[in-house]
Amino acid sequence: MSNSLEHAGAILTIDLDAIGANYRLLRDRFQGAECAAVVKADAYGLGVEAVAPALARAGCGTFYVALIDEGIRLRRVLEDVDIHVLGGLLPGSLDAFAEYRLVPTLNSLAEVEAWSGVAAGADEAPSADLHIDTGMNRLGLPRDELDLLCREPERLGATSLATVMSHLACADDPGHPLNRRQLEDFTGARAALAGAGVGAGASASLVNSSGIFLGPEFHFDVARPGVALYGGNPLPGKPNPMAQVVRLQGKILQVRDVDTPQTVGYGASHRITRRGRIATVALGYADGFLRSSSNTGSGYIGDIRVPFVGRVSMDLITIDVSAVPQHLIHPGALIDMIGPSNPIDRVAADAGTIGYEIMTALGARYHRVYAGDGA
Amino acid sequence: MSNSLEHAGAILTIDLDAIGANYRLLRDRFQGAECAAVVKADAYGLGVEAVAPALARAGCGTFYVALIDEGIRLRRVLEDVDIHVLGGLLPGSLDAFAEYRLVPTLNSLAEVEAWSGVAAGADEAPSADLHIDTGMNRLGLPRDELDLLCREPERLGATSLATVMSHLACADDPGHPLNRRQLEDFTGARAALAGAGVGAGASASLVNSSGIFLGPEFHFDVARPGVALYGGNPLPGKPNPMAQVVRLQGKILQVRDVDTPQTVGYGASHRITRRGRIATVALGYADGFLRSSSNTGSGYIGDIRVPFVGRVSMDLITIDVSAVPQHLIHPGALIDMIGPSNPIDRVAADAGTIGYEIMTALGARYHRVYAGDGA
Repeated sequence: MSNSLEHAGAILTIDLDAIGANYRLLRDRFQGAECAAVVKADAYGLGVEAVAPALARAGCGTFYVALIDEGIRLRRVLEDVDIHVLGGLLPGSLDAFAEYRLVPTLNSLAEVEAWSGVAAGADEAPSADLHIDTGMNRLGLPRDELDLLCREPERLGATSLATVMSHLACADDPGHPLNRRQLEDFTGARAALAGAGVGAGASASLVNSSGIFLGPEFHFDVARPGVALYGGNPLPGKPNPMAQVVRLQGKILQVRDVDTPQTVGYGASHRITRRGRIATVALGYADGFLRSSSNTGSGYIGDIRVPFVGRVSMDLITIDVSAVPQHLIHPGALIDMIGPSNPIDRVAADAGTIGYEIMTALGARYHRVYAGDGA
Repeated sequence: MSNSLEHAGAILTIDLDAIGANYRLLRDRFQGAECAAVVKADAYGLGVEAVAPALARAGCGTFYVALIDEGIRLRRVLEDVDIHVLGGLLPGSLDAFAEYRLVPTLNSLAEVEAWSGVAAGADEAPSADLHIDTGMNRLGLPRDELDLLCREPERLGATSLATVMSHLACADDPGHPLNRRQLEDFTGARAALAGAGVGAGASASLVNSSGIFLGPEFHFDVARPGVALYGGNPLPGKPNPMAQVVRLQGKILQVRDVDTPQTVGYGASHRITRRGRIATVALGYADGFLRSSSNTGSGYIGDIRVPFVGRVSMDLITIDVSAVPQHLIHPGALIDMIGPSNPIDRVAADAGTIGYEIMTALGARYHRVYAGDGA
């Protein structure tokens, strides 16, 4: 649901052409066979019904989601693509995979066996991905279950493995020793599986967005970028090679003159120290603009930085606009909350988090505009 | 949109009877004429289409929202209640107030004049609320605009004032000197308006949830509680008099044995120091479970605390369940992420924020259950 332009407190513009360009940049950089796209969590908050077709127009044919219902929703939008569900097999969910042609990720030996039961009853061997944990300790077969599967490969039954995959924990930190250890463990796991005659025709997949930039030895067959598609920097601390996708413009509701000894907002946490002007903008933490950016975040008007003063409240943010020419500041005027001068990673840093969380928190009350089509 | 029980990664239960009981407790405590309810931000994230009718059944006849489109949405659910819109008059929004019988809040002299233009063309004098700022410096007439209005009351035109209101900045901190200063300023503003012949028939409204507990001299005619209706503690640091409304249960996807020297999650931020077990639960910051609770938050299984280990990721949280009997921990079993042992204010404190933000961030991927009806 998108509020009307006139009534909304803020305008969220999502550049589908930028997403398409980012997909092609990553695909060109990736030296494996197939660059997929991760569109879980409603395409990182940007709206999967608009984003996934744009990615398909840009050439993407393989998509990853977290939950089955996300896969079902995506299938209703894209009839002919491959859809993989990362979250595994929840009890009571097996039938939906076949019905919507979703490929499950088998994250444990118990799931391998549950799926082999499905495979036994099927006309055609249903495919699945096998997830080997190499250091996240989150999902995926641990070492002992992998060893057991290699000793007893019949546990897979008639399952056809589409992909053997793992997930990097520290890909955004190229110097972290865990990257190479995970690479070695993944290589070892694949060799062990091959030795046991498992997954001969399966693709291998290791890298996320940042992983693509770790170099070709990490690439294997299938890449699974997410955040970089949406403009997040896959190379923290270095210039961002990705096009910016998100612009969020907050509407000014009111402007006021302030002077010492006044305070601003809840808890009177900001003290006015000199004459100035404050604009109140119609979005807040209920719109996903994190409260942790209280007194630390900032907006931009053109290239003039306008700092947040006082606490971010549920529906409102107060901003010091003293530095901006007065004729630019009036009710209805827009302040860039995320934009060319304050990209998503900068907004995230001000809030003490990462761009991913800023995106997935983008709220339901914005007026949403999709620009371009990705092609 | 609510995911199915089988497919969802977590189950959110909202107790409408508890909301009804909380409304009645606040109404009984409040000594003014009318206890309203604030249902902005989708009833603090709990779903206005279910929550507002429950409040109406509990006896509430007056509702406050932040944005016009929230008022329109509420009007479609409740035909016969009073709906006030706090956010003021955005350019291009004037017609909607009459069409949906919404009462605007006039936050500035410019808005007073804009609304008097509407009033001039109306058959019946349309009512509005007048918001006097007494220390938030966020919305509302500042002192100089109030003085000007008192000198030139004809600026109101034919507008009929329903309420004269202000908003407390520090009501949750009873000893804060700003409370009394705001009370005095509000009393002074009402006297000045009365002296100018403005708002003779208007109600006065000052208190939010916490303000009700500041005592009767703060009460005036209309109370505007929000967070306490939904179980948030209006008395931080003291026992919570409100009934708990929200329960959030995360589903276990996988359980694994871990041992030193392994690490958990992104950035390898948690090091395993001894043999133990980790459960991975199917919700994350994309579901509004803030990433700032990484390594600090905890769930409960019954009354056993199970701490988060490693970073909260987009769709998953890893939890140390070593302390829990093994038969209770299996895929599909539930962990209380918000519940009897970890109420919303505790979850908020672990994440470095307030209960309001935890509620308004509650995500779209949960399976939602509404219990009771509020009556």
